[in-house]
Amino acid sequence: MENMSIPHHTRASVIPEPHSHPVIQTYPIPQLAPGEALLRVVASEVCGTDVHLKEGRLSGVPFPLIPGHVSVGEIVAVSSPLYSPEGTAILPGMQVAFLDVFDTCHHCLYCTVWKTSTRCPHRKVYGITVGANETPGLGGGWSEYMILRAGTLILPLAPKVTPDIWIGAGCGLPTAMHAIELASIRIGDRVLIQGSGPVGLSACALALLSGAGWVGVIGAPAERLAEAQRMGADFTIDVTATTPQERRERLYEALNGYGPDIVIEASGSTAAIQEGCELIRDCGRYVVVGQYTDNGSISLNPHLHINKKHLSIQGCWGCDFSHVFRAMQTLDRFNERIRWDKFISHRYSLEETGQALIDVEQRSVVKAVIIP
Amino acid sequence: MENMSIPHHTRASVIPEPHSHPVIQTYPIPQLAPGEALLRVVASEVCGTDVHLKEGRLSGVPFPLIPGHVSVGEIVAVSSPLYSPEGTAILPGMQVAFLDVFDTCHHCLYCTVWKTSTRCPHRKVYGITVGANETPGLGGGWSEYMILRAGTLILPLAPKVTPDIWIGAGCGLPTAMHAIELASIRIGDRVLIQGSGPVGLSACALALLSGAGWVGVIGAPAERLAEAQRMGADFTIDVTATTPQERRERLYEALNGYGPDIVIEASGSTAAIQEGCELIRDCGRYVVVGQYTDNGSISLNPHLHINKKHLSIQGCWGCDFSHVFRAMQTLDRFNERIRWDKFISHRYSLEETGQALIDVEQRSVVKAVIIP
Amino acid sequence: MENMSIPHHTRASVIPEPHSHPVIQTYPIPQLAPGEALLRVVASEVCGTDVHLKEGRLSGVPFPLIPGHVSVGEIVAVSSPLYSPEGTAILPGMQVAFLDVFDTCHHCLYCTVWKTSTRCPHRKVYGITVGANETPGLGGGWSEYMILRAGTLILPLAPKVTPDIWIGAGCGLPTAMHAIELASIRIGDRVLIQGSGPVGLSACALALLSGAGWVGVIGAPAERLAEAQRMGADFTIDVTATTPQERRERLYEALNGYGPDIVIEASGSTAAIQEGCELIRDCGRYVVVGQYTDNGSISLNPHLHINKKHLSIQGCWGCDFSHVFRAMQTLDRFNERIRWDKFISHRYSLEETGQALIDVEQRSVVKAVIIP
Amino acid sequence: MENMSIPHHTRASVIPEPHSHPVIQTYPIPQLAPGEALLRVVASEVCGTDVHLKEGRLSGVPFPLIPGHVSVGEIVAVSSPLYSPEGTAILPGMQVAFLDVFDTCHHCLYCTVWKTSTRCPHRKVYGITVGANETPGLGGGWSEYMILRAGTLILPLAPKVTPDIWIGAGCGLPTAMHAIELASIRIGDRVLIQGSGPVGLSACALALLSGAGWVGVIGAPAERLAEAQRMGADFTIDVTATTPQERRERLYEALNGYGPDIVIEASGSTAAIQEGCELIRDCGRYVVVGQYTDNGSISLNPHLHINKKHLSIQGCWGCDFSHVFRAMQTLDRFNERIRWDKFISHRYSLEETGQALIDVEQRSVVKAVIIP
Repeated sequence: MENMSIPHHTRASVIPEPHSHPVIQTYPIPQLAPGEALLRVVASEVCGTDVHLKEGRLSGVPFPLIPGHVSVGEIVAVSSPLYSPEGTAILPGMQVAFLDVFDTCHHCLYCTVWKTSTRCPHRKVYGITVGANETPGLGGGWSEYMILRAGTLILPLAPKVTPDIWIGAGCGLPTAMHAIELASIRIGDRVLIQGSGPVGLSACALALLSGAGWVGVIGAPAERLAEAQRMGADFTIDVTATTPQERRERLYEALNGYGPDIVIEASGSTAAIQEGCELIRDCGRYVVVGQYTDNGSISLNPHLHINKKHLSIQGCWGCDFSHVFRAMQTLDRFNERIRWDKFISHRYSLEETGQALIDVEQRSVVKAVIIP
Repeated sequence: MENMSIPHHTRASVIPEPHSHPVIQTYPIPQLAPGEALLRVVASEVCGTDVHLKEGRLSGVPFPLIPGHVSVGEIVAVSSPLYSPEGTAILPGMQVAFLDVFDTCHHCLYCTVWKTSTRCPHRKVYGITVGANETPGLGGGWSEYMILRAGTLILPLAPKVTPDIWIGAGCGLPTAMHAIELASIRIGDRVLIQGSGPVGLSACALALLSGAGWVGVIGAPAERLAEAQRMGADFTIDVTATTPQERRERLYEALNGYGPDIVIEASGSTAAIQEGCELIRDCGRYVVVGQYTDNGSISLNPHLHINKKHLSIQGCWGCDFSHVFRAMQTLDRFNERIRWDKFISHRYSLEETGQALIDVEQRSVVKAVIIP
Repeated sequence: MENMSIPHHTRASVIPEPHSHPVIQTYPIPQLAPGEALLRVVASEVCGTDVHLKEGRLSGVPFPLIPGHVSVGEIVAVSSPLYSPEGTAILPGMQVAFLDVFDTCHHCLYCTVWKTSTRCPHRKVYGITVGANETPGLGGGWSEYMILRAGTLILPLAPKVTPDIWIGAGCGLPTAMHAIELASIRIGDRVLIQGSGPVGLSACALALLSGAGWVGVIGAPAERLAEAQRMGADFTIDVTATTPQERRERLYEALNGYGPDIVIEASGSTAAIQEGCELIRDCGRYVVVGQYTDNGSISLNPHLHINKKHLSIQGCWGCDFSHVFRAMQTLDRFNERIRWDKFISHRYSLEETGQALIDVEQRSVVKAVIIP
Repeated sequence: MENMSIPHHTRASVIPEPHSHPVIQTYPIPQLAPGEALLRVVASEVCGTDVHLKEGRLSGVPFPLIPGHVSVGEIVAVSSPLYSPEGTAILPGMQVAFLDVFDTCHHCLYCTVWKTSTRCPHRKVYGITVGANETPGLGGGWSEYMILRAGTLILPLAPKVTPDIWIGAGCGLPTAMHAIELASIRIGDRVLIQGSGPVGLSACALALLSGAGWVGVIGAPAERLAEAQRMGADFTIDVTATTPQERRERLYEALNGYGPDIVIEASGSTAAIQEGCELIRDCGRYVVVGQYTDNGSISLNPHLHINKKHLSIQGCWGCDFSHVFRAMQTLDRFNERIRWDKFISHRYSLEETGQALIDVEQRSVVKAVIIP
C-alpha cells in the first residue's frame, strides 16, 4: 500500500521548561529514516504523570518536551515494511496503538539476565524522556503528528477497539495489567484495591475479570467509586469520609472477619502503605504500584507488618509490551462489560492542554484526553 | 522392641513467671496416652526466643513454662506404634529429632486453603506455648525427660548426624531453610545476609550450598563473622564498626557496582530493613526473617524502596516439617563442610539455665546448649 | 442447637461386587462417635467414576460399596461441636457440602514435605474406598443418610448455592478447579479444552471466568458443545465429526495461525494426548486431567512434542479442600452466569441407580443425580 | 585501545554439503561493519550437534557451513565501542566468550509476550544457521578468525576462567543451566540424571552445586560415570550393562523405596523417556533436555505416567544469555571443584575436524576441541 500524502508541518503542544504552561509550536515533519513510521494522532492521554512532568517532579526529563506518552492514531507513512509482533503488516491508513517505551537495549543485565526490562536504563518513553529538540523530534502525542522510532512495538487496534476505548483505558490499563500479573489472583480470591484513579479502576476491572471472589475499592471521589460499582465491585468506601478504623471495621464485616487475600495499592498516597499492610490477611500478597513519585517516607513496623504476617510485598514499575498486548485483547473482549471508553470525561484541543493539566491535578476529571 | 524402663520422676528447669529466673522442679512422669512418646533429652537449645520468653516479650505464653523448643534425645517408650514421615518405625533406643510444632489443625483456612500452616492459630510449640501445668506436662526440652504429643512429627537422626550436630544447628537451620526457600536462589545469584546469629549463619551456609555466586554477611561480633568466612563467605563486614555509607561503598565495590540479587534479613535490628531495601539491586528479592519480636517502627520510602525499585519483599514466619526434614538431609550431607556442631560454644546443666539466658542475651556465645 | 430426631434405619443403594447391578439394602444408623455428623442426603452425584467402579476398573475398592462421593445434604445430628474451616458452627438443619476425601494423614512425605496431599496413600474417599461393611458404615451418598467421619471438612452451602447447584457442579468443578490452578491462566490467554463432560465443561467455565482471551472446546455430543457455547465459549468442534487435520485447520484459522497458549485435557481419550501436544503453541502449558483410568498407551515423539516445543506438561490428580472451597465461592458468585445447575439432565431414585449407571456410561446424560 | 593488526585471510574448516567431510578453505577477512568484532579463535567445540549437522539431520542449515557454535578467543578488532552486558568495554587483546545466538528479534510474540526467546524464529546460531557464503561470512568457530555480528552478547572470561575451562564446559554447561533452572532444585532434593554426555555431566555438577541431597547418574561408558563420581555423584549405573528392572531396583534401594524428586533427561535416547516417567516419584518434576533430534516416537501411558502420578514434565530447548552469564560465574567459582576443563579429552587441528566428528559420533571422547 502507498504511503498517504505527508504534510510538511505539524502543530504540537510543548512544555518549554518545568513549571511553565504548555504552548503551541509548529514543527517541520522530517523525512522518515528506515524503520520509522509517521502517525497522525487521533487522541492522546493526559495522565497524572503529565502533571508531575510539568511540575518538574520527575528527574531526567529533557525540556522543551511534547508530552503525551499513550496515544492512538492512524499510520500515514512507513519508511520500510513494518510488522506487528503478531506478524501483521503495519500499513498506511491503519489505526494503531503502540508501546510507549522504545530503545530497551536487550543487552544490559536487566534485559538479558534479570529479565525485568522495565528497569533497563536505556529505555526511552515517548512524551516523557524524548525532548522536542532531539532528532527526529515529534516524540510526544500532544501533536497532530508524531514519529514512531524504529523498533517501536506497534499494534493494530483489535476489531472491537476504537480509539476512544484505547485512550479511555490509557496507560492505566497496561500498568494495572502488570500489577495484576504480580498479584497472581486465583479464582475466588478476595481483592482490595486502594485508589480509584485510572490505575485503580483498571485494577478493579481486571480483578473482576480474573475470577476474584470479591473486589473492594477504597478511594475517592464518589463518582469514581460509582464507576467501580458499575463494573461490579462488591464494596467501595470513600477514603475522604472515613477513618482508617472505620474502613477496617467495614471491610472485616464484609469479609466475615478475614482480611483480603490480595491488596493492590494504586492510590499514590504514602499513608495507604501502612493501611494496606494492616488490612491484608496473614500470608497475603500486597502489590504496590501507585507510588510513582517521591512523596516522602512512612512508618512501618517490620515485625507486625512483614515478618509475623508472613506478608509478600511486591513493587511494580512500568510495563512492557506483554501488558499492552494483553490490554488490547482485554479491551476487544471485555470492554462491553467494563466500558473503559466511559472513563473519558473531558476532551481538550491542543490549545487547551494547560487547562487539562489543571483539571487532572485537581482530580475534577476521571480521564482527560487531547484531541489534536 | 520393648520399651525401656521408665523412670518415675524427672527434673526440669522452669520459668515460674515473666522476668523470673528459672528454677529446678521435679515432676512425675505420667503414663503415656496413645500416640505419645517419652523422650530422654540429650540436649536442648537456648535461643534468642528463650530470652524473649523470660522477659515477657511474647504474648500468649503460659507460665510456669519449661523452655526448650528444639531438643534432641533418645526414645524411651512409645505407647503405640509410631512412624516417621518416611515410614521408619520409631523405637525405644532410637536417637531422634522432631518438629517443635504440633496440633496444627489441618482444618482452618491457613491449613487447608491458604497452605501456610505456620500461621495456623491452633498450632502449639514445645517450650513456648505449652505450660508446665498442662496435661500431660513435660512439654519443653530443659528437662531430663519430655513427652512428645500424639501427632508430633518425629525424625530419626540421619546416619552422620549426632545430637551435637542437630542441636548446633538448632532452630536456626530450619528457620533459615524456610527463608532460603522463599529467597529462591539460583546458581550464580549474589546473596547478602544481614545478621550473623544462628539464623544468619545458617542462611549463609545454605546460600553457599545453593550455588550462590557470591555470599556476603553484615553482622557482629568478629568471631561470628569469622565463622561465616570459615564456611566460605566471600565478604563480611562488622556492623558495629562501620557506617551504612561505608558498608554500601564496600559492598558495591565488591559487586562491581551492582547491589546483591537477594538479601536475607536475619538481624533482629529494625534499622536493617531500610538498609536492606537500599542495598539490594532493582528487581531484587528481600526476605525478612529476623524481626521476631516487636521492636517498633521504621521509616521507609515506598517510592524509592519498593515501587520504583520493583522490589519483592517477603516476610518469613516459623517453619514446618519440610524445613526440618531438609535440615536433617543437609546436616547429613554437608555438616562436614559447614560444621554446624561448631556453633556450640557453651554447654550448661539444668541448674545453669539462668546463666545461659544471660549469656545469650549478651551475645557472648554463638550457641548455648542445655545438657539435662 | 438440638440434634434433630435420628431415624433408626436408612435405605441405601449398594454394589455387591464388581460387574453387579446395585441393589437396595437397609442399614441401621449407628450412634455417632465424637467428631461425626449424620447427614440426610438431599442429592448425590453419578459420575464416570461410578461406572468405572461398577465395572471393576479401579483397584483397591472394597465391596460391597455404597457409591456416591459427591453429595449434598442436611445435617441431622452432630456428636460434638463441629466447625467449618471458616469457623462457622455446623449445626443440625444446615445444608452442607463436604470434601469427599478424609483421613489424609498429614504425616507422610506427600502431606508434609512434598505438599501434594492428593497423593497421600492414607486418604480415603466417600463412595469409592469406604466399604459398606466398614465401621461406622454409611460411607456413600447413594443412601438416605450417611455418616461424615471425624475430620471431614464440611462447608455450609453459600447463600446463593442450592443443592441443585452444588450437585450440578458435582466433582467436576473441584477437579476442574485443580486443573485451572495448574494451568495458571493469565488475562488474555487462549485456552483450549479437550473434552466436554462435566470436568471439561467446568474447565471451560473456569477459563472464561479467569479472563481467558479465547476459549475453545473439542468434544461431543452436540448438546454438550451447545452448553459450552451458552457459557460463552468462542469455539467448539465436534470430535466425532471431524478429523484431527480438520480440527487443526479450523483451530489455527480461529487463532490467526498460532496454537493455544494453554490446553486442558479432560476427555478421557488417550488419543487426545498426542493431539493436544501437537495443537498447543511452542512453550505452551498442557494440563492432563482426564486420564483417570488406564486405557493403555499412546505414541509420543519426545523431540517434536516435548523438547523442541519447550512444552510444559502437568498431570493433575484429584483435588483438595482448597478446590472445594473455591468451588463454593465460584458457584455463589458466578452460577447465575454459568448455570451449573443446568448440567443436571436426569434424576434417579435409589431404585434407579442401575439405570443411572447405564445412562452415564452411554453418555446419554450430561449429569445424572440420585435423589434418595 | 587500538585494534590489533588484522590479517588479510583466514583458514577455516568447511562442510560443503550434508554427508561430506569437512575441507580447508581460505577466506578473505572483510572490513568490519559497525558493531562487529573480529575474534581470533583460541578453541572451538565439537559437539553432538556437529555430527547431526554433517549427517544432514537438522533442517534449515545453509551449506557450505563453517561449524563451531561455542568458541572462545581473543578480540583482535572492534569497529565501534562494544560493551559486555555488565558494562565492561570489549577491547582488543581481551579473551572472551559469547552467546552463540544472535539476531533474536525482540519483536515477535515469543520474544515480547511469551518471554521464551529460545523459540524466536528469527534467532541465528553461529556455526549452525550461518552459511559460509553469507555476508560478512566467518560465522563459525572452526576457523582461525570469526566475525562476531552486531548485537552479539560478548562476555570477557572471568578471572579464573581459562579458554580450556570455557571450552571444556562448552555448550553443555549453558544447556544444563537452562535445564537446572527449569528443574527448580531445592536443598535436599534427590536428583537423577539420565545421560552422561557433556549436558548430563554438567547437569550432574549443577545439581550437586545446587544443594541436592542426592545425585544419581544413569549413563555410559564407564569413564564418564567415573567423571560423575569424581564430581561427587552419589550413585552411577551403566545403562549398557543393566536392564531397566535392575536399574529400578538399585535406584529404589539407594533411595529407601522412593523415586527421585527430580529427573533430568540428557541422554538423547528415546527409551529414556518412559523409564524416567516410571522412576520418578509421584508429583515429581521431569525435565527433558536431551531429545535434540527426531529419533522417532515412544510409547507412554498417560494414566500411569502423567495423570495419576501428578507429574510435571518440562521440555527444555536451547539457552539464552542468562545461562551463559551464570555459566561464566559458575566456572569462575566452582571449576576448581568440578574441573570442567578435564572434560577435554582430545584436541584437533583444523585439518583433523573430520576425525573429530568421527570420534564424537563413536563416543570415544568426552569432549573434542578444535584448536585452529
